[in-house]
Amino acid sequence: MKRTSRDIRTANRYEVLRRIIARSPTSRPELAAATGLSLATVATLVGELLELGMLTEAGFEESAGGRPRGLVAANASGGTLIGVDIAETYVHAELFDLGLTVLARAQEPVRPGERTPKQVVAQVAAAVGSVVAQAGANGARVLGVGVSMPGQVDRENGVLVHATNWGWHDVPLLDLLAGCIAYPLHLDNPLHACTTAELWFGAARGRCDTVVVNLGTGVGAGLALGGALHRGVSNSAGEWGHTTLVLDGRPCHCGSRGCVETYVGAPGIMRDLRERDAHGPLLHPDDETATIDALARGIAEGDPVAVDVVRETARRLGIAIAALVNLLNPEVIVLSSWVARRLGEPLLAGVREAVARHALRRPASAVEIVLSTIPTDPVCLGAATFALEGALASAVAAGGRHFV
Amino acid sequence: MKRTSRDIRTANRYEVLRRIIARSPTSRPELAAATGLSLATVATLVGELLELGMLTEAGFEESAGGRPRGLVAANASGGTLIGVDIAETYVHAELFDLGLTVLARAQEPVRPGERTPKQVVAQVAAAVGSVVAQAGANGARVLGVGVSMPGQVDRENGVLVHATNWGWHDVPLLDLLAGCIAYPLHLDNPLHACTTAELWFGAARGRCDTVVVNLGTGVGAGLALGGALHRGVSNSAGEWGHTTLVLDGRPCHCGSRGCVETYVGAPGIMRDLRERDAHGPLLHPDDETATIDALARGIAEGDPVAVDVVRETARRLGIAIAALVNLLNPEVIVLSSWVARRLGEPLLAGVREAVARHALRRPASAVEIVLSTIPTDPVCLGAATFALEGALASAVAAGGRHFV
Repeated sequence: MKRTSRDIRTANRYEVLRRIIARSPTSRPELAAATGLSLATVATLVGELLELGMLTEAGFEESAGGRPRGLVAANASGGTLIGVDIAETYVHAELFDLGLTVLARAQEPVRPGERTPKQVVAQVAAAVGSVVAQAGANGARVLGVGVSMPGQVDRENGVLVHATNWGWHDVPLLDLLAGCIAYPLHLDNPLHACTTAELWFGAARGRCDTVVVNLGTGVGAGLALGGALHRGVSNSAGEWGHTTLVLDGRPCHCGSRGCVETYVGAPGIMRDLRERDAHGPLLHPDDETATIDALARGIAEGDPVAVDVVRETARRLGIAIAALVNLLNPEVIVLSSWVARRLGEPLLAGVREAVARHALRRPASAVEIVLSTIPTDPVCLGAATFALEGALASAVAAGGRHFV
Repeated sequence: MKRTSRDIRTANRYEVLRRIIARSPTSRPELAAATGLSLATVATLVGELLELGMLTEAGFEESAGGRPRGLVAANASGGTLIGVDIAETYVHAELFDLGLTVLARAQEPVRPGERTPKQVVAQVAAAVGSVVAQAGANGARVLGVGVSMPGQVDRENGVLVHATNWGWHDVPLLDLLAGCIAYPLHLDNPLHACTTAELWFGAARGRCDTVVVNLGTGVGAGLALGGALHRGVSNSAGEWGHTTLVLDGRPCHCGSRGCVETYVGAPGIMRDLRERDAHGPLLHPDDETATIDALARGIAEGDPVAVDVVRETARRLGIAIAALVNLLNPEVIVLSSWVARRLGEPLLAGVREAVARHALRRPASAVEIVLSTIPTDPVCLGAATFALEGALASAVAAGGRHFV
């Protein structure tokens, strides 16, 4: 609840490690300059991370006139991390080294009618087994597995409290997973995973307050405030898709009406398209991905229906984002997830225009709105980062024992 | 931007002082139990606050079987603080002792047509002069003056960037005030003042994440996250009144449409009343206060129009608050400012019902929604607290010199 000196040490440790992962090899003075920490603090933290086996010495660089500076880098052979993204129709797993480079990938299908907790857990175990096998010798040194599952997650107890689209309630997912996966496990939802990925590797790194707007089938807004993920009092912060944008508007599966998600989530965009041109070539009924892809191609080709639908989506999304800008006064807004990625620049341009028009001048002029630049699956990456954070916390708690 | 160990020490110092102000005299072990800090940390901080003259020794209490415990209390004669609330039609000043007890009050009118920066500064100087004179000997030991002015405030440079209702742009208010007030000055807006008052003296004290919903002529939501005010990157966080609740709805003075403020701020409520019963006894055209008072009496007497208007206001407000609950997952929502105070319990009941209906279950079940319990003007109190925080920071920076 309250922040302690220990939280600060943890945050500084993350900050140093983030910089090293971003730019390896690097020197202690460079790290001090980049993080704003004192050289003494950096030296202590680097020493600790070397001791833990997270970092490795990486030679020397000449410094102008002085003695050569020692370089450090993420220790690629210090252990591996696994991130698991449980999605509607598949389970995706990736295995990373400590520099968060992907070493192996696996995917298992989740078929309609095969969505009981037991069946999904079996697919997760299969995907994890596959990346471990592919990684060969590296597979023997897994420090932890982060698992992302859509829904409301009680992280401390590892319970999936509620997953709307799956009909799951109070499933002790972590216990079930622990029955077939022997590594330390960390459970959270995809929004928190993506936001953590942006904090470690994306637009939120080193920035003050960032909002990560996730635009997919569902819609959310992950909050990275003061350099840390804001989880809220019961780990459910970020459920921005259920913000009322149109009082008494379209019904939403959450039971309310007029939610942002019903307008700018993929099903909402499909509804707009249906209302405008139900029999046109853009709409692929029952296929969100194909429809959004068709829209993206349509804009590129100047199709008036596509241009019009994306313009209105961007306007609504921008008006909703303007409210976030007014409320939180963030430094950065990142548009993430597959709908944002596929609609890309035209969506971004429309959002920027609507924010400029609808937000107050002072916060609007302070915010930068960008597309996510994370090249791989941000959910796997973020989930693996949970495992990294967990491994670091246990190693420190165990009093500086080596990871390996 | 990033939090440092110094921020933590400052936060711990505030936390200890808040507890002592809340419950004086108190012992170090009680403080450790109440704050969750170690006894050693509490002893260090109490020693420092005694040294600074903020606290005073207050005798001993017997402890069961052990030696008597030393008691400490806020040092009522350690200096005074002034809070100034610049409002639409008046300037209100209060002078407090270090236990934040009011010692003197003064009010000066701000008349229509007398709202230039120079005229308003003169009224502030008059109000401050008045409370200093009333306080007699106490008036000689003013540690600082906090000034709250509605609008967008550049706090670091003391500039009023924009005040919609006053037509002010980029007014160097702190410099103008410093021309006629000799004490250290601290400038911010009423929303941040009220939220700070709730953190020090109200429902947010000792709680994790609190949202202070200010319901007056304007509407805002102050964010107390992790025990500290969230200011955002340019100190404008909290402008929640300009969240779109009705896409393309009522025009707002901010230039957008359908803003929360146009429905649940006092002028929005008056508009509802006008649309329902333009010639009834409840509506006092051009008098917000009289109208809201009439509504409050109307509900008490079962007037169907009053009941209906307040019910719809509570429903809309609750739907907008549900979005805050979903996004931030706070522990507490406080309804504050004059419209909330006057409409009271019936408004609160309607808001709770709408939040229960429209927010997601997990965050809804984690939040408590309450009316503010701060008995005096929260803006003056919060503004005085800015002066307290500022005095504490300067004293610590000066290396522990006594205040007096």
